[in-house]
Amino acid sequence: MTYQAPLRDILFAIEHLSAWSDVTAQPQYQDIGKEDAEAALEALGRFSAEVIAPLARLGDEAGGARLEGDKVVLPQAFHDAYQQFVEMGWQSLSHPADHGGMGLPRAVGAAASEILNASDLSFALCPLLTDGAIEALLLSGSEAQQNTYLEKLISGQWSGTMNLTEPQAGSDLGRVRTKAERQEDGSYAISGTKIFITFGEHELSENIVHLVLARTADAPAGPKGLSLFIVPKYLVNDDGSLGARNDVRCVSVEHKLGVRASPTAVLDYAGATGFLVGEENRGLEYMFVMMNAARFAVGVQGVAVSDRAYQHALAYAQDRVQSRPVDGSARDAVAIIAHPDVRRMLLRMKALTEGGRALAVATAGWLDLAQPGAGETNADALAMAEFLVPLVKGFCTERSLEVTSLGVQVHGGMGFIEETGVAQFYRDARILPIYEGTTAIQANDLLGRKVMRDGGDTARRFAALVQDTADALSQGGAEAQAIGAALTAALADYTAALDWLMPQAGQDPNAAYAGAVPFLMLTGTLAAGWQLGRSALVAEAAIARDEDVAFMREKRATALFYAQHILIDSAAERARVTLGAGSLLDDAISL
Amino acid sequence: MTYQAPLRDILFAIEHLSAWSDVTAQPQYQDIGKEDAEAALEALGRFSAEVIAPLARLGDEAGGARLEGDKVVLPQAFHDAYQQFVEMGWQSLSHPADHGGMGLPRAVGAAASEILNASDLSFALCPLLTDGAIEALLLSGSEAQQNTYLEKLISGQWSGTMNLTEPQAGSDLGRVRTKAERQEDGSYAISGTKIFITFGEHELSENIVHLVLARTADAPAGPKGLSLFIVPKYLVNDDGSLGARNDVRCVSVEHKLGVRASPTAVLDYAGATGFLVGEENRGLEYMFVMMNAARFAVGVQGVAVSDRAYQHALAYAQDRVQSRPVDGSARDAVAIIAHPDVRRMLLRMKALTEGGRALAVATAGWLDLAQPGAGETNADALAMAEFLVPLVKGFCTERSLEVTSLGVQVHGGMGFIEETGVAQFYRDARILPIYEGTTAIQANDLLGRKVMRDGGDTARRFAALVQDTADALSQGGAEAQAIGAALTAALADYTAALDWLMPQAGQDPNAAYAGAVPFLMLTGTLAAGWQLGRSALVAEAAIARDEDVAFMREKRATALFYAQHILIDSAAERARVTLGAGSLLDDAISL
Repeated sequence: MTYQAPLRDILFAIEHLSAWSDVTAQPQYQDIGKEDAEAALEALGRFSAEVIAPLARLGDEAGGARLEGDKVVLPQAFHDAYQQFVEMGWQSLSHPADHGGMGLPRAVGAAASEILNASDLSFALCPLLTDGAIEALLLSGSEAQQNTYLEKLISGQWSGTMNLTEPQAGSDLGRVRTKAERQEDGSYAISGTKIFITFGEHELSENIVHLVLARTADAPAGPKGLSLFIVPKYLVNDDGSLGARNDVRCVSVEHKLGVRASPTAVLDYAGATGFLVGEENRGLEYMFVMMNAARFAVGVQGVAVSDRAYQHALAYAQDRVQSRPVDGSARDAVAIIAHPDVRRMLLRMKALTEGGRALAVATAGWLDLAQPGAGETNADALAMAEFLVPLVKGFCTERSLEVTSLGVQVHGGMGFIEETGVAQFYRDARILPIYEGTTAIQANDLLGRKVMRDGGDTARRFAALVQDTADALSQGGAEAQAIGAALTAALADYTAALDWLMPQAGQDPNAAYAGAVPFLMLTGTLAAGWQLGRSALVAEAAIARDEDVAFMREKRATALFYAQHILIDSAAERARVTLGAGSLLDDAISL
Repeated sequence: MTYQAPLRDILFAIEHLSAWSDVTAQPQYQDIGKEDAEAALEALGRFSAEVIAPLARLGDEAGGARLEGDKVVLPQAFHDAYQQFVEMGWQSLSHPADHGGMGLPRAVGAAASEILNASDLSFALCPLLTDGAIEALLLSGSEAQQNTYLEKLISGQWSGTMNLTEPQAGSDLGRVRTKAERQEDGSYAISGTKIFITFGEHELSENIVHLVLARTADAPAGPKGLSLFIVPKYLVNDDGSLGARNDVRCVSVEHKLGVRASPTAVLDYAGATGFLVGEENRGLEYMFVMMNAARFAVGVQGVAVSDRAYQHALAYAQDRVQSRPVDGSARDAVAIIAHPDVRRMLLRMKALTEGGRALAVATAGWLDLAQPGAGETNADALAMAEFLVPLVKGFCTERSLEVTSLGVQVHGGMGFIEETGVAQFYRDARILPIYEGTTAIQANDLLGRKVMRDGGDTARRFAALVQDTADALSQGGAEAQAIGAALTAALADYTAALDWLMPQAGQDPNAAYAGAVPFLMLTGTLAAGWQLGRSALVAEAAIARDEDVAFMREKRATALFYAQHILIDSAAERARVTLGAGSLLDDAISL
């Protein structure tokens, strides 16, 4: 079956959850209307369904990206699709107009990213990393560097990569050993081996702009001695044309569980020419910009693969006839969608997908509000966005494991057969809670940075916003009241966990961080439930106005399902945090 | 790394949880001592670690079983291993001595099955299906059939299969169309296509004994018109030697997500000679014997793959150095096992694995008590065993998805690389909640048959047993009391769900069955927690006697971890059952 972009739900989220009118009141978006977003996403949806979605099985069946000599080989269809992708300008969608971008708000960018990733996670990883490189250069690159690289990256003619990981340095980037030796001309000679480099080598784009963390000669040990370098695959002449091949070579491509058509390269830097970004020893700080953009984008990948799995499972369940209904309403076998447990699985998939989408789009709105104009920062909005990013990454990717697993389960035995296509989503999704910072890294970021750094201010501001929504729901009809009650209960669990964690983080860090992932999952589940609660309020008002009633009733019912089936996990997560550290750290279990 | 059979924990479970002294007081086990079990499992553990465990990667890397002509090709090492398996007599371990078996109790059989499956799920599927065929023939075969087939099956010289599924008949076996035409000599000509036949074709054993569901000429429609037939791959001469090749051919082997070295065959029966087992139209009844044995065994597979994943993750976490400890206790990076969240993941894996093992071994004890002697039945024990089997299947296999997923997560990026080996466990495990009846089928069996058929008597007897354990724990030390309190709380959730479900099952079956899987998971989680509670009681007594203190303290601490981190999901499952049906069935969501 083919993929269809869920435009109706996406546009609902952009319009009602992303602070759309506030965002588009900002100067950089003043010419943007809803119809621009709609037109762009509709066209991207058509292109993705027709051109990108068929790549998913193709790239996987071919056994993925292959290294031949020092070239990575992908099926020709990937080249054709990438060419069209560039020609249609999709890379540029949410990048600034003054570097050739379409300049649409981030909420639209997030939606576009979902559509592209749902079509094929592997293909979409190339633009995803390019987006990260663009963000990093926009914030930290010199004017000359921006002039040399940005336009080609934003057009998609060139692609970007992030080079962080080394065999001994994964989550722990302080252990990076790659060296950068300053040359007489001001450039640096980069030497070392980087692993797990997504789209680190390929022939889809004309050039690859590697952003590389390395250590200069006198740099201090640890994470504060890392600098960031631009290392292009082909050096760029002054007139912008491509020059000599740089001394960076792909020596291996990994054989992976999923996203097999996305080449994961081992790159050997043998004195490659690199150009310092910003100042020495501030590389990790710059890279965090790229990483935060990438973390948000990976969260969106979780939503994307969930929706793709849901669409497949729904179509199968509508088609596959098996067994009589349990209520005796038919004498013959019926489509399995009529069986309550199949419906249960599909509704979990749907509610988790829509909840994740709502959370991601709302977070994109905060990201936009954080930058009200060129060089300006709204500190409160930025803090809220930064609080939400690890939730988008942690919650949407962990839940995508459940959703893609349910997608297999709905298919029964057919789900286990590779040709059916849904096992691939289960395999592809498995990288999402790992790369760009594992779930534990997100949880440590949430607790250690986002909660503790401002003494819990943002964490409590978040709670107050959720409370406002719960209060509004409590004034509504029966469904709204039930959603509000569930939200209030989950919020109490959140607050109790927060109150327990904050003093512990100083007094007994092991006990605090033992609860970091349960706290992340509690907070992410609550945050998505909050957005679905906001959706239910919008829906209730629309129903009262007799507008779009069927869609709005479904929206409200989905929020209620989420509240009664998913949000209720908060009590157990709270208990894991506040009552579970002792048994978790008990040294009677020596391991 | 290599697999090591967890003998210490297995023997603990057999000795303390499987009603060992009652079981071995039965006449058929009167000559069996603990030392026999220990010796057999130790030898099997050695053999499995050395010979079987290396097959896992090998069979997977080779791309799995391949069809060449009408022969299925497996790597030579599989043939050598199977040969040794037969020579050492492992197929016979828990089969009756009067047909050449070792005659060990089922708890030992379950443990042996865990060890073999942990070594390689694919290889172990061949003996698993043979076990099922043996069970079916023991209970339903004529004396002549038993004489012809049992000894060769019990030795492993011949293997067995179950032929149920057809393209239109999966969970719904009433739709089976394969025909059986009675011949003049009393045999039947079997015609039709069977799919998803595990080890349906291979050259490991000399002959394959297919047990096939088919429909005779005048059979009623639906499930009550199915008969069971023996269809050997090679017909058997009167002297027991092999005769002509029967008209059953493998026409395809599936390309699967996991267990790739286990050939999943499409079998074409073109008038193959079959022999009726028992009476016509009672096939499903006989097949249920085989299916129940297989369902229990698949639950054990869940425990097995969980333990294998746990062993790998533990070894990696002990070895991989990354990041400083959060409590500042070291200035340098430490082995990741020191990080609280890695410990959390490992403890979840350990507790779920030991909980599943405890439940499976205890259930095996009830299965043995159900058959106190040849032809005798203990009805109460049988009802309890039948209540527990869907829990073993549903709980242990669903939880194996979480455990194998955590196994990947502990490995970080390396977990996603196929050569690491742990992605395979994640892939292999995915079939377990599907085959031999999906989780929903287990849940319907639990609610519709095991709970409702006797008006809830067994379900309440189960509750009373759990209560006894909780009461005993409440008399113990602080850890025991905490475990007892958690068990009591979860039991209250179980009882509330049961009280809600029983009247609904008649009044509003859709609402009842909408909660069937949450009820199964609640009950399975409780049942495993109950067995860990019993383990904690044993451990506390041993500690008081100063016996084996380190092991026993760890056992008790693992039970406490389970109680505080896993058992606490019962409240949310209860709410899904008792409060969730309305939002699940709400027709505002049209799907």
